Amino acid sequence: MASISEQIATQTALFNQLRLQNAEPSVLDEAKKKLGELKKSLALSKGSDASTAAAGNKEAPSKRQRLLLKTAKGTRDYGPAEMFCRENIERTVKECFTTFGGSCLDTPVFERKDILAGKYGEDAKLIFDLMDQGGEQLALRYDHTVPLARYLAMTGATTTQSKLWQVGKVYRRDSPVVSKGRMREFSQADFDISGTWDPMIPDGEIVSLLCSILTKLDVGEFTIKINHRKILDGIFEVCGVPADKIRPISSAVDKLDKMPWLEVKKEMTAEKGLDESIADKIGEYVKHKGGPDLLEKLLADEALMANANAKQGLTEMGLLFTYLRVYGVLDKISFDLSLARGLDYYTGIIYEAVVEASAPPGFKASDAAAAAPAAAPPKKKSKPKADDEEEEIDESQVGVGSIAAGGRYDGLVGMFTAAASADGKKGASLPCIGVSIGLDRIFALVWPKWVEKGGRCKETMVYVMAAGDGLLEERIGLVRELREAGIKTDFLAKKKPKNLGVQFAAGEEDEVPFAVILGTDELKAGDVTVKEQKWEIVGGKKAKIQAEKGDKGTSVKRAGLVEWIKGTPTFQEWVAQK
Amino acid sequence: MASISEQIATQTALFNQLRLQNAEPSVLDEAKKKLGELKKSLALSKGSDASTAAAGNKEAPSKRQRLLLKTAKGTRDYGPAEMFCRENIERTVKECFTTFGGSCLDTPVFERKDILAGKYGEDAKLIFDLMDQGGEQLALRYDHTVPLARYLAMTGATTTQSKLWQVGKVYRRDSPVVSKGRMREFSQADFDISGTWDPMIPDGEIVSLLCSILTKLDVGEFTIKINHRKILDGIFEVCGVPADKIRPISSAVDKLDKMPWLEVKKEMTAEKGLDESIADKIGEYVKHKGGPDLLEKLLADEALMANANAKQGLTEMGLLFTYLRVYGVLDKISFDLSLARGLDYYTGIIYEAVVEASAPPGFKASDAAAAAPAAAPPKKKSKPKADDEEEEIDESQVGVGSIAAGGRYDGLVGMFTAAASADGKKGASLPCIGVSIGLDRIFALVWPKWVEKGGRCKETMVYVMAAGDGLLEERIGLVRELREAGIKTDFLAKKKPKNLGVQFAAGEEDEVPFAVILGTDELKAGDVTVKEQKWEIVGGKKAKIQAEKGDKGTSVKRAGLVEWIKGTPTFQEWVAQK
Repeated sequence: MASISEQIATQTALFNQLRLQNAEPSVLDEAKKKLGELKKSLALSKGSDASTAAAGNKEAPSKRQRLLLKTAKGTRDYGPAEMFCRENIERTVKECFTTFGGSCLDTPVFERKDILAGKYGEDAKLIFDLMDQGGEQLALRYDHTVPLARYLAMTGATTTQSKLWQVGKVYRRDSPVVSKGRMREFSQADFDISGTWDPMIPDGEIVSLLCSILTKLDVGEFTIKINHRKILDGIFEVCGVPADKIRPISSAVDKLDKMPWLEVKKEMTAEKGLDESIADKIGEYVKHKGGPDLLEKLLADEALMANANAKQGLTEMGLLFTYLRVYGVLDKISFDLSLARGLDYYTGIIYEAVVEASAPPGFKASDAAAAAPAAAPPKKKSKPKADDEEEEIDESQVGVGSIAAGGRYDGLVGMFTAAASADGKKGASLPCIGVSIGLDRIFALVWPKWVEKGGRCKETMVYVMAAGDGLLEERIGLVRELREAGIKTDFLAKKKPKNLGVQFAAGEEDEVPFAVILGTDELKAGDVTVKEQKWEIVGGKKAKIQAEKGDKGTSVKRAGLVEWIKGTPTFQEWVAQK
Repeated sequence: MASISEQIATQTALFNQLRLQNAEPSVLDEAKKKLGELKKSLALSKGSDASTAAAGNKEAPSKRQRLLLKTAKGTRDYGPAEMFCRENIERTVKECFTTFGGSCLDTPVFERKDILAGKYGEDAKLIFDLMDQGGEQLALRYDHTVPLARYLAMTGATTTQSKLWQVGKVYRRDSPVVSKGRMREFSQADFDISGTWDPMIPDGEIVSLLCSILTKLDVGEFTIKINHRKILDGIFEVCGVPADKIRPISSAVDKLDKMPWLEVKKEMTAEKGLDESIADKIGEYVKHKGGPDLLEKLLADEALMANANAKQGLTEMGLLFTYLRVYGVLDKISFDLSLARGLDYYTGIIYEAVVEASAPPGFKASDAAAAAPAAAPPKKKSKPKADDEEEEIDESQVGVGSIAAGGRYDGLVGMFTAAASADGKKGASLPCIGVSIGLDRIFALVWPKWVEKGGRCKETMVYVMAAGDGLLEERIGLVRELREAGIKTDFLAKKKPKNLGVQFAAGEEDEVPFAVILGTDELKAGDVTVKEQKWEIVGGKKAKIQAEKGDKGTSVKRAGLVEWIKGTPTFQEWVAQK
């Protein structure tokens, strides 16, 4: 019989093949279960092997602890090629932020613990705390919104700084799925508008901004699901949800993009004690999604319009639609009554951007709110657990999720000013609305396309080389001159490189477009040789386009080299692209 | 008699005046001591007042804890104006990094604790630990060098990624002096070259890079102090320092830029048990600084040249000078035998960039290594203490310090590969050299000049406005069109702004150069009005240059507005500047 390791290898291959063939869930489950059992028995046999060995060998093994060379769980490094793509994403996002009138804010990575307390409801257990080393109780920031509100409360509201953006990392002790950009350390780009402005104008600005960014980022077709907390509250009230159950029931509705309706209903009734008839009424409402047509329908719903919350929400949504039409983004919007958003602090419109590719397999973004999806993805486990526990998430069954989300939070700054005031009452409030863009999830979507297009990993334009004696000082001299002229240049850090070939190879690894070759005789004549290198994509891989046989390159006057390079179409194109 | 509070106010004013007048240290000390005593007695009287009040009032005060609205100790927010300057600094640094052939690396903000262990010597106590919440022991990164070495050890050495740069925050639980950019959370920009290259070529690249960056950043005149660990070790050996005392004695020498020679000598002899005669010999060597002349002098020192370490170090330094001459940066270099650098892992050349303005008062960068400076700055307290303890650092006596530093560390990657190997021996080594640029300290130097020059806080180019009926939808339509054309545009988020004045005021707060005014009749005729706004610096403050009386602005066809704006010198200048 084959060893357990061999059986595992065979079973893994089978499982992967089944997955590729889109096999029935039950067949996949079966294959996966068997794989799990095999792995378990391997672990057991290893354990007993180890103990046998230890028992048989009276020489105790050395106490040396072998270092685990890895990053912390749920975090990762991004190397040069990935960072080149990520920097590009970040530049695009920041360019949109400033185009919309935003200015930058930077807050510390950690905050005093009491600043974060009471802001995240159930998810507060996911906050990373710093060790008490004498002094303040500190914790890593969980998002950019709470530090922004703390900043606004500290500095006081002003009109000048009403549009602020932040780009940086935030931290959650959640179960990570690294391949899908679900990390414990992840990058978010936030844009927020604060201040008392006329209704729905800043709201329209934010939605328009989000559409601009997602359009520029090449994430594929996207939809922005929008709802309004007041409409949702109105619906709950009209359906007969008792006041103290409104937030818990809203929290259950929030799971509709991850669970089928029947499970959500069960949570409402069995777990949260709601009457089944009330749950059914809610079910009738939250299955709706659409555009201005849905709004018309709800505006004609007399029961709903008799509720003050619903009426205000629907009126505001109508105004928003008017503005979004002028912004030209109405076709991106899905007014979706099942969208609830987890955070407690939202008070007005809420939204979430999804793309087809961000949903787990078997899902379609456009079906995300359907009452009974074909296959339910695994429930997100938000309970933190010891990191040594076996990871149970099946990555193939997890989508990237929403790639951006946000909403209006008119009370958060007031919470801070009130808590910091002498009597707990005098808090100055400051209406705010914002959006958080998940840069890691966007990277997970954009990266495969970037690779396919053959994205470079650095910008170097010229590689300076020489054969024979190496001409090191002459190379350094020219490299210096080119760099001072703003041309990104490099060379091989060898005194006498073996030959031109190793230098060409080094330049080609970086896909440097211009090879400049120095020769003793040519330098005396005041000349250098330039060879332009080009690449093409062949079968998804980059390949250098071979020069014609006998091509000796172009002889250029050394004194005019900077001008010559800057005049080439390749260089001009690079400048234009920046 | 005046109340204690009044006495404190008077004494504070006196102390500040004395400081401005550069009073004698003894006089200043006296004034400061008295101020301290007054504050102490105020605290005491308040304490007794409070207890009296509590005793007299049987109604216990409510338990409500008032929120302290502040950032964590040693951290701070950077608002829009500051961030605009910081983004500019960062852009300049990154541009130099890529011009020198670097590509970007990003590592997580926290690492597994054992990755950081054993890398920072005495300073390890300054590491910020995360709380053990079940799972891994984690700590915030202390610098970029150790995570980089961990990354290089994990991925294996390759030639393609031999130049890596990182820009991000690092963390140290040190005593902060916020005004001087000495923070617990601070930004560093690192550039490192790894790989086995020919001697001193990467070293020359790094020093040339550092000179390029500091020249571009407008930090003022700077000096790069350079030394070589092997020269220093050779000197210690030649002077007769026992092998086991070499690192502790090196550590004492490292303090010469912060303490007078006599104190350093005392540390060597009284604390570290070195013979006074040996200390005196060291003192003779480490007072030297200069350029190639000093090198000549040392190369002629027979005792030194008989030492293998010293000989190798001096030979390498000679080669470095040859290259630095070709790079054209020799005039920035000070070969400084007192430079030792604290970290244990350096193995070759070490360097530190200082500017006149970065030294504490009474110091000159060029005198930094002088044996007996006129007035010693306070000893840096590196012992962490409870944050509630009173801060004893006198900010006026602390300089910004070195603004960049680094060195060659050929053994660090090997430490990781060895520790992670099965037998602790097979570690593949990878020579490295790098530099860390202290972005907060550079910001502290650049910011006052930036303000003086009237730096803006955002890039908005056009402010769209309308009077009368507000023309909100028309404004949004035009704003959208301009933004889509890449012109950064904003407008007032009011349906019917009170008048044009409030809109001009809002645009002027952001110093937006173009005001575009919509009017119902003009729009019908297909026209808009553009007024260009300009600012000047008057008495260190920005003031709008008033238009000539009766100036009605320029009438421009709405359909041609984008082209018109893009054709203006103001817009062209902004594009060129990017």
